[in-house]
Amino acid sequence: MKLLRVGTAGAERPALLDQDGTLRDLSGLVTDIDGALLADAAALDRIRTAAEAGDLPVLDAAGLRIGPPVGRIGKVVCIGLNYHDHAAETGAEPPAEPVVFFKAADTVVGPDDTVLVPRGSRKTDWEVELAVVIGRTARYIEPDEDPLSYVAGYAVAHDVSEREFQIERGGTWDKGKNCETFNPLGPWLVTPDEVPDPQALGLRLWVNGELKQNGTTADQIFPVADVVRYVSRFMALYPGDVINTGTPAGVALGQPEPKPFLRAGDVVELEIDGLGRQRQELKDA
Amino acid sequence: MKLLRVGTAGAERPALLDQDGTLRDLSGLVTDIDGALLADAAALDRIRTAAEAGDLPVLDAAGLRIGPPVGRIGKVVCIGLNYHDHAAETGAEPPAEPVVFFKAADTVVGPDDTVLVPRGSRKTDWEVELAVVIGRTARYIEPDEDPLSYVAGYAVAHDVSEREFQIERGGTWDKGKNCETFNPLGPWLVTPDEVPDPQALGLRLWVNGELKQNGTTADQIFPVADVVRYVSRFMALYPGDVINTGTPAGVALGQPEPKPFLRAGDVVELEIDGLGRQRQELKDA
Repeated sequence: MKLLRVGTAGAERPALLDQDGTLRDLSGLVTDIDGALLADAAALDRIRTAAEAGDLPVLDAAGLRIGPPVGRIGKVVCIGLNYHDHAAETGAEPPAEPVVFFKAADTVVGPDDTVLVPRGSRKTDWEVELAVVIGRTARYIEPDEDPLSYVAGYAVAHDVSEREFQIERGGTWDKGKNCETFNPLGPWLVTPDEVPDPQALGLRLWVNGELKQNGTTADQIFPVADVVRYVSRFMALYPGDVINTGTPAGVALGQPEPKPFLRAGDVVELEIDGLGRQRQELKDA
Repeated sequence: MKLLRVGTAGAERPALLDQDGTLRDLSGLVTDIDGALLADAAALDRIRTAAEAGDLPVLDAAGLRIGPPVGRIGKVVCIGLNYHDHAAETGAEPPAEPVVFFKAADTVVGPDDTVLVPRGSRKTDWEVELAVVIGRTARYIEPDEDPLSYVAGYAVAHDVSEREFQIERGGTWDKGKNCETFNPLGPWLVTPDEVPDPQALGLRLWVNGELKQNGTTADQIFPVADVVRYVSRFMALYPGDVINTGTPAGVALGQPEPKPFLRAGDVVELEIDGLGRQRQELKDA
């Protein structure tokens, strides 16, 4: 299933994109797509049954904003330097174990919402990423457990990053990862039955129509299952939590000088195989 | 005012500790103490008026758990190395600008709740901190604005930290800061009228009755006002967000070998002048 949330920011209604590409209203069945729903197998089954029976009302998609596909996100855990080619372009050694940092949930916006270049920013950069959304509470996942059984679905994430704030201002990376609007997510949350192999997904990103990133999750240093298991050793993961699993090569930071960092007026487009496409215009904060 | 939340975890009711030390029920006036309430000056005025008039029902405190004093926390921003003596004991230079890292809001527990030593942990450490709770949305606070006007109140925070996870496992500090139960907060949210100078507060922490930290916010490298202004340049701060403003010297990491890291059975007590006292027992996760 492709689950999404449509409407004005903060007042989105739950919806489904059916097999024919028609938008269907879920608000008669569930109040929102959030951690509570993703942890409720019976509710997800009701959605699936209604969708297959063709029982869901059609939503008029014209002019509808798409919001982030998950509401009330608790936390966004991010994995850094998780593609061999991206680690190389930043001059970093491939990490011995996953690099973890955070984005606040309040940085999450819809897939086509405006992204704000922070005041004083000179190094706003792009990163297309596979996001994993957690469906049930995970603590210390055991070696004989399948970490993917904790995953409710997958989505496109844009891990927007300000490199000066991240790297040159002291402290941890978080300072350059948490500016307002810095995590477009969506358009859809795609359930695992439609993503048979999360390590075989092409990811692409364009700036002003020019292809900048063109990678595959096959190149991840730590695949999704390993990431989920690893993170569960250091923190509890709850339904509705998001993990951004890293970006492939091609970010502005990895280009020769003068590096082509983002400015107001630029347009970034992102897509991942089977997970849909985003388009953001940059504006000054 | 001293605002708090009492009851079982996830079902706390709002309360007030009055001038006589009597617990008063606020659930007839407001649904919760959260960002929405803290941003609502009229609602806070109603509480204050009712408290002064003696109109609030007494709550029987016997056996009542105290929860975190703020519900629905959006994010917890943390400032590292913000006391001269603590920077020195960790071998770090005093930072040129504030060091920022994150704790997920789901790490926040009540002031007397159990703290879990993570599985595999050998270096669980303590940190008493002054927490600042935001009362209105702050973005790019201007030079002529008073950053403290964005503060809804102050509280005691325990920034529990796993030093191996934080420092020796690659990546950012977040890996050692986000284990389950790692942020006891409270007992009270104390409004700014009762904290005339946040830079004149003594902070103390004991382990098994032995005084380990005994500092004052006068020694902060970046005082609270500077921290709030600084953070607002890198991210939007929303009502109900928390900033942990750093810890003074005396943590286990700063002691000679063998460093006295925490273990199951240890008891940690913390207090800050005028903000109350916490007591946690450590257990294995």
